[in-house]
Amino acid sequence: MERKKVLIIGGVACGAKTAARLARLAPEFDITVLERGEHLSFAGCGFPYFVGDVVKEYKDLVCTPLGIIRDANFFRTVKNVTVHTGCLATRIDRENRCVTASDASTGEEKNFPYDNLVLATGASPIRPPIPGSDLNRVFTLWTMPDALAMKSALSSGNIKTAVIIGAGLIGMEVVEALAERGVKVSVVDALSTPLPALVGEDFGLRIARAVKAKGVDFFGGEKVTEITGEGGVVTGVRTDRRSLPADMVLLAVGIRPNTSLARDAGLELAPNGTIVVDELMRTSDPSIYAGGDCVQTRHLVTKKPVWQPMGSTANRQGRVIADNIAGLATPFSGVLGTGILKLFNLTIGKTGLDEKQAKEAGFEPVSIVVEEPDRPHFMPGMGAMTIRLVADRLSRRILGAQIMGTGVVDKRLDAMVAAVSSGMTVDLLADGDFAYAPPFSTALDPNTHAANALKNKMDGLVKTYQAKELRERMEGPNPPLLLDVRTPGELDLQGRIPYEFVNIPLGKLRERAGELPRDREIVAFCKISVRGWDALATLKGAGFDDVALLEGGIMAWPYELK
Amino acid sequence: MERKKVLIIGGVACGAKTAARLARLAPEFDITVLERGEHLSFAGCGFPYFVGDVVKEYKDLVCTPLGIIRDANFFRTVKNVTVHTGCLATRIDRENRCVTASDASTGEEKNFPYDNLVLATGASPIRPPIPGSDLNRVFTLWTMPDALAMKSALSSGNIKTAVIIGAGLIGMEVVEALAERGVKVSVVDALSTPLPALVGEDFGLRIARAVKAKGVDFFGGEKVTEITGEGGVVTGVRTDRRSLPADMVLLAVGIRPNTSLARDAGLELAPNGTIVVDELMRTSDPSIYAGGDCVQTRHLVTKKPVWQPMGSTANRQGRVIADNIAGLATPFSGVLGTGILKLFNLTIGKTGLDEKQAKEAGFEPVSIVVEEPDRPHFMPGMGAMTIRLVADRLSRRILGAQIMGTGVVDKRLDAMVAAVSSGMTVDLLADGDFAYAPPFSTALDPNTHAANALKNKMDGLVKTYQAKELRERMEGPNPPLLLDVRTPGELDLQGRIPYEFVNIPLGKLRERAGELPRDREIVAFCKISVRGWDALATLKGAGFDDVALLEGGIMAWPYELK
Repeated sequence: MERKKVLIIGGVACGAKTAARLARLAPEFDITVLERGEHLSFAGCGFPYFVGDVVKEYKDLVCTPLGIIRDANFFRTVKNVTVHTGCLATRIDRENRCVTASDASTGEEKNFPYDNLVLATGASPIRPPIPGSDLNRVFTLWTMPDALAMKSALSSGNIKTAVIIGAGLIGMEVVEALAERGVKVSVVDALSTPLPALVGEDFGLRIARAVKAKGVDFFGGEKVTEITGEGGVVTGVRTDRRSLPADMVLLAVGIRPNTSLARDAGLELAPNGTIVVDELMRTSDPSIYAGGDCVQTRHLVTKKPVWQPMGSTANRQGRVIADNIAGLATPFSGVLGTGILKLFNLTIGKTGLDEKQAKEAGFEPVSIVVEEPDRPHFMPGMGAMTIRLVADRLSRRILGAQIMGTGVVDKRLDAMVAAVSSGMTVDLLADGDFAYAPPFSTALDPNTHAANALKNKMDGLVKTYQAKELRERMEGPNPPLLLDVRTPGELDLQGRIPYEFVNIPLGKLRERAGELPRDREIVAFCKISVRGWDALATLKGAGFDDVALLEGGIMAWPYELK
Repeated sequence: MERKKVLIIGGVACGAKTAARLARLAPEFDITVLERGEHLSFAGCGFPYFVGDVVKEYKDLVCTPLGIIRDANFFRTVKNVTVHTGCLATRIDRENRCVTASDASTGEEKNFPYDNLVLATGASPIRPPIPGSDLNRVFTLWTMPDALAMKSALSSGNIKTAVIIGAGLIGMEVVEALAERGVKVSVVDALSTPLPALVGEDFGLRIARAVKAKGVDFFGGEKVTEITGEGGVVTGVRTDRRSLPADMVLLAVGIRPNTSLARDAGLELAPNGTIVVDELMRTSDPSIYAGGDCVQTRHLVTKKPVWQPMGSTANRQGRVIADNIAGLATPFSGVLGTGILKLFNLTIGKTGLDEKQAKEAGFEPVSIVVEEPDRPHFMPGMGAMTIRLVADRLSRRILGAQIMGTGVVDKRLDAMVAAVSSGMTVDLLADGDFAYAPPFSTALDPNTHAANALKNKMDGLVKTYQAKELRERMEGPNPPLLLDVRTPGELDLQGRIPYEFVNIPLGKLRERAGELPRDREIVAFCKISVRGWDALATLKGAGFDDVALLEGGIMAWPYELK
């Protein structure tokens, strides 16, 4: 019997994973990978750490834990997979099930027949049509040559200033990489706050302040008009508001899927140019599968199409494709839009839906912002985090979370991933039996605190304002009275809310409650609004009816303090 | 209208939480707490860290993050809760809804009427009837006076050797505390391996080796026969097999619930002496609630009664009791038996059911052991972990997990908590959209690797042996041929399996497969059995039919290596 021929175009994340998984499931198949670049199965997500010199050698990004380079020879001897590098697929003949590819060095064309074809053609960084974007030292960071060029420039010692255009995940990871190497970094983005795909404006404002404290300038809501140079080498960036010096520039404004091959072959594409696949990752031609950055996928919660070009998604889809080619009929579960990054001492992440996405998907979202320590205050290394938790009012299902802080954020995020994936209710999360010992958590984990606070709000046990809502109230008619129950020393240390307020430390509130007006709404807060909660109880006990809480207290206040 | 009187007996975890939550929900209630000790709301889980001097001052364990001691005055001014310390409840008069209590210093008796009573009487450490257990410097570690006495003894400089009797959570936490202070520690337990309630024998053997490497001797399967002393002070411990010198002894053999008050009042108790409560935490008298270490609760997966005396459970139950007294009708979700501890550079934890518990509960458990890195090998600080994942064959539901390692274990455990709580299937977990960036995880998280491996096993894609199963096969008739596909250097570094084996590094297997017999089962493995998987594919591709994998490879092998 003829061996089944599986041809895979692309050998980085999805393609390499498909090949490796399939070789294990079906050693009898004839598996071939065509990769246009020189490097296979490299860890592109590691590039910012390579550029930042956390990872010293590029080989670390392309080798196994044992130090063996994952090259064509490795794939041949260990995986029984044939790989052609420097091999650009140029045409798919669907009728004859054959792909034409050309050798990058010789230009020689060759035909590769297939029984199943896998398109793992990935994506490419967008080079916006800005004058000067073709100057030397204007980089993108997507391929191994990109990473090598950028690291080489940095190692030359000539880079004192850098401008990063685009404050998404890659841009902000490189912010840290460059700043830690002593480069003066500025970030420019057309939107007003960093990481807009990950977190809302309130978190974004705090992130901008946090990077400022590390010497990094963030210029939001600005449009880059020109990249200037001298002698063919970049010297600066002009925006519609300022000129910035730059010994190097990183373009990190987004990516587009590599789907011309699919388009030319007549496969169905989505309006954004990604390849349309079904639950089994099959394209509109059932003998052709596609996965990774080049495909449109499905959101696990909304069930709607979504594009989530991430290394983790690509790996998951590679497994699913291999399973299906091997006849296992494994569906792809979908994505949650999970993302995370380390930014200096902060960890910032998101999973599931934010409120806007939840509304668009037809839910009735309720959200809460809480500020929590990640372990008991008596344990060394305690960090803090802000959690915004979103649930559906009717079903009480957890829809998503955004978490940010100096504490162990990734742990809480991954528990939220499991909660959102499985449709957990806010009630079950609030009563979760999470692992507690002092080195790891508080007796009730931050996630359960967030869920409990959200329950309180959903069940009408407490009236709360988020910072933005409170600011609107304070700047509108009949503003409430603000009651800060911190100690005076904390006010000096942590700052004051920029409106008129009354300061009565919680311990004095019972005896001094008579000083407060009974005909006006009172909004209480403290550092993180735990004492604020107690203040509400004290006021209610003293007969005050219209009392509310500022969610997350002063720590979650994203605007200027005074 | 008369204020509703809520009386709470016990002011540590459950009692203090009930009072604090209830004061927020119902400021109009008259809330009183009777605590027999001097300290309220203290962090008992922090005692091992206090004894180990990680926490310097005992005040850190009884104060708020702001440094305010949670004493009776604090509860009065901040929480509007009346607290009587040094006040021992002696009798419940259910008919007249009244509790009699005596003042510890004056002996004076006083009556406390109630509308709702809450029993949060906790538990007490068992002092086994061993001769010598009343000697000086034979400690338990349960109350603040216990902790102060133990720390004072350690600070005297006279403690060179210590014996810990009981290798449960508290015992093993104190192992680290003492060893880090330079004390030579021995642990004695009647069972053969440490932490038997948390992990199975295979993990336990590895834990015993790990503490041995830190200079700690573990003597399993030994019975303590006598604690010896001189001049009233302990000098050693005798077991049925040896004598151990000891300048101090910790008795950590377990606890029993404090329920004589409930028993005398005629409330229903379970056979183990814990108080029986319903889903709303009500005892057999609906005006009396109970929670914390003194009650029997329900397992979330099995729905069967279980006793889980943990600080986190007590806090959760305190909230639920407060809700129900305030009329919110909140059910307690149940427990998963989650536990975690830090032990030197290891983190060890469990949630949900192990295989034995799953079988007893009527499931058909399938388990897998995997060995995984916690982030890419190129990132600094990479750690490893072993995951044992258990699922039900029929429903494919995740039933539980035990995780152990030098890596970030607590994160994977909490994601498993969410997965088990919500009844997630192995398929959904395997395809989880967990947060990936190189500082935090591998592209596919260890949990998803574990789930994928378990799927492979459940779906019959691979035949595997766990270490114990392989050992049985090797010591029975017709043992399989062992194929170690590591490099010779790794064999020297990591050790060799203590049976006859063939060593062919994976990269040579394709060309050398002909050396292997075709009429004998072959079991392949490597360091963590990833290359072992590839070896299976290579062998299958070469026509070998009867091939299997050692789960977790050499790293998960718990027995001696050679």
